[in-house]
Amino acid sequence: MSLELTILGCHSATPRVNAHPTSQYLEINSRHFLIDCGEGTQRQMRKYKVGFSKINHIFISHLHGDHFFGLIGLISTFGILNREKTLHVYGPKGIKKLIEIQLEYSKSHVHFELVFHELNSKKSELIFEDDKVFVRTIPLDHRVYTNGFLFTEKPKLRNLNISEIKKHSEIEICDYNNLKTGKDFILSNGEILKNDSLTLDPPKPLSYAYCSDTSYKPSIVEIIAESDLLYHESTFLSDREDLAKKTKHSTALQAGKIAKQASVKQLLLGHYSSRYSDTSLFKKEAQQVFNSVELAEAGLKVKID
Amino acid sequence: MSLELTILGCHSATPRVNAHPTSQYLEINSRHFLIDCGEGTQRQMRKYKVGFSKINHIFISHLHGDHFFGLIGLISTFGILNREKTLHVYGPKGIKKLIEIQLEYSKSHVHFELVFHELNSKKSELIFEDDKVFVRTIPLDHRVYTNGFLFTEKPKLRNLNISEIKKHSEIEICDYNNLKTGKDFILSNGEILKNDSLTLDPPKPLSYAYCSDTSYKPSIVEIIAESDLLYHESTFLSDREDLAKKTKHSTALQAGKIAKQASVKQLLLGHYSSRYSDTSLFKKEAQQVFNSVELAEAGLKVKID
Repeated sequence: MSLELTILGCHSATPRVNAHPTSQYLEINSRHFLIDCGEGTQRQMRKYKVGFSKINHIFISHLHGDHFFGLIGLISTFGILNREKTLHVYGPKGIKKLIEIQLEYSKSHVHFELVFHELNSKKSELIFEDDKVFVRTIPLDHRVYTNGFLFTEKPKLRNLNISEIKKHSEIEICDYNNLKTGKDFILSNGEILKNDSLTLDPPKPLSYAYCSDTSYKPSIVEIIAESDLLYHESTFLSDREDLAKKTKHSTALQAGKIAKQASVKQLLLGHYSSRYSDTSLFKKEAQQVFNSVELAEAGLKVKID
Repeated sequence: MSLELTILGCHSATPRVNAHPTSQYLEINSRHFLIDCGEGTQRQMRKYKVGFSKINHIFISHLHGDHFFGLIGLISTFGILNREKTLHVYGPKGIKKLIEIQLEYSKSHVHFELVFHELNSKKSELIFEDDKVFVRTIPLDHRVYTNGFLFTEKPKLRNLNISEIKKHSEIEICDYNNLKTGKDFILSNGEILKNDSLTLDPPKPLSYAYCSDTSYKPSIVEIIAESDLLYHESTFLSDREDLAKKTKHSTALQAGKIAKQASVKQLLLGHYSSRYSDTSLFKKEAQQVFNSVELAEAGLKVKID
């Protein structure tokens, strides 16, 4: 089980020469997701070798331009590249209309199925599930309807403790699947061998919580609790907490507080306002309350095994 | 009088790391225009130091993504930067709806006036005129409704030939304006001094013809005749003339033929298909019929005095 996050862009508001708006590529338990898609994301994907064909699910947090103006270009490019696989897009209500009208007017040749999953719930909900991963929304508090996303690996089957199993000649290979799913083994004499005497715990499922953009919102803590990695926006430092409140963004200190309250393993900061040239100040500020802090930057990969 | 064109992007179809979709910045006779606006144009403008506040008029040739997907981001950025000046956008019918719906859903704060000039004529028409410049459409032949644009300086007033004027004591400074506009001067004895004995020809007005995207269309020759600079798309080389015809694009040879027939001073090629890694082949091919050929590339400036 593993998780690798690649930052494609992590700055707020307007794209600049070396400051790209938000987008992330997540590999988790052999699944591949694109999270947000600011202008220029497809170029960043090429730059950081993110295979276009791996992306089958795109999650858009909200409809501010710095999080989705690159989506129409990416979808159009998928069409030009003769994509055939279905593409699923999860995002706020309205995203379907916005993309479809642009495809219509630009006469983009999209021959693959494009499935929109429009969100409007204010409560956390399960929006994706397969045999490997769950994705739940994290309702955020921003100027427009916004969700973060919690990506969680599905628990793996238990590992067989072969040396213990071999002590019981009655246990055959065809019984192994039952053992992996946690069942006890009943010997022919009626004796019950408890499952945990024959198997070992599987690795703990990993989880990644993505929270951008939002004002300080402690009610998300219960949703993201104990995540292995939390990305939390920190548009401002505490010197502009007033502006953070007004624009419904967070300070680095507030991001640190959320990380601490949620007992996550690691905090990743991003979505820096262009008013700050020295991003190391964000790290310092968050570390006043939470130690394990990393700064997002384009091209950064965070890997957790 | 002068003309300076800056290439911001000149590749076709999908943005790549070092291949940017079409956009150009034109300074002509102290006016500043943006022509087409593919994804990432605002980043290219920053990279090549094109002042955002200089742009009051944007011309969009057609609604294929590689020519306009960057427009919404640029307009949104103008809003974030608290632009107050009116912005005029010229483009095919539909462009107003496409931009306005995105501004609405993204709740972009655009407090300046945004005026759309939607085009649907199949004939060349005057779409912009002030005291310095005319802009006319060049109807092109592509898969969707497409116009090129012809930017022409307005003729300047005649230059005073001061040494000749000084020979006639009756001519006073208050007469100079009449002389500049071409009027003859009548002496008190009734003798007529012909204007061209007192003034010199002003510099010839410069013109720039932008033609992308189009199939080979010789009927544009009369519109663009004798332009100082012609940008003509050359998506393909002649080896794929069949594909050029099918997709309604041009080959470099066809662009060269248009330049020759129109007796332009200089031809600039661009909109190269990604199938060609060596763009020098485009120049060689066009030079089979027209000598003065330059290859567009991001950052190139072409200046004509």
